[in-house]
Amino acid sequence: MSKYKLAIVMRTDLDMGKGKMCVEAGHATLLAWVNQSELHSTIETRNAWYSEGQFKVILKVKDAHELMWIDELARREGLPVVQVRDFGKTQVEPNTLTCIAIGPALSEDVDKVTGTLPLL
Amino acid sequence: MSKYKLAIVMRTDLDMGKGKMCVEAGHATLLAWVNQSELHSTIETRNAWYSEGQFKVILKVKDAHELMWIDELARREGLPVVQVRDFGKTQVEPNTLTCIAIGPALSEDVDKVTGTLPLL
Repeated sequence: MSKYKLAIVMRTDLDMGKGKMCVEAGHATLLAWVNQSELHSTIETRNAWYSEGQFKVILKVKDAHELMWIDELARREGLPVVQVRDFGKTQVEPNTLTCIAIGPALSEDVDKVTGTLPLL
Repeated sequence: MSKYKLAIVMRTDLDMGKGKMCVEAGHATLLAWVNQSELHSTIETRNAWYSEGQFKVILKVKDAHELMWIDELARREGLPVVQVRDFGKTQVEPNTLTCIAIGPALSEDVDKVTGTLPLL
């Protein structure tokens, strides 16, 4: 078990191909890394996660409603959260919420929110 | 057309599921962003790419041999290149080269190397 993790939670109702999902996961990872919002990881947590191997897990939800529920749960726990909205040049409509990233944070804290979600 | 891009070139011979490919694409994106190697993007290029919307494209090659050939071509062009090697805790053997990232760089320069590769 990694001490720290980044969980990316992806919608599966948008008919995104695997390449598109990879793009969104890349966005999510970088947004989580540069996150300067109110709910951000400390530099110490980010560096610990990075040094440990940047452990990531990709989970799935069935739609935007379920994704926003997970987003809300993560915020209530005070976890770092970023939302990925696509420009919509390909495959999805502009400004579509495609996924969120939770972390980097202690795995045990992330798991409180995402522990029951299935792997993508 | 975006002026700058990051191209991620993924092996397709490793039987990685789409979740695993998303993980590797996330690694590739972050490694390209923090890249401090000899062949790295300038801060100006990185910021321009980021501000423009972090345009990414995910391409595919059939095996490690083809991937290393693309890697070599990119280095010859002086493009920023990072290799992603997996810890091998899941799905692949430890230290397996799964993908590379080329850029962020001017799209026209990246396309010289990756322009003929198919989308993942």
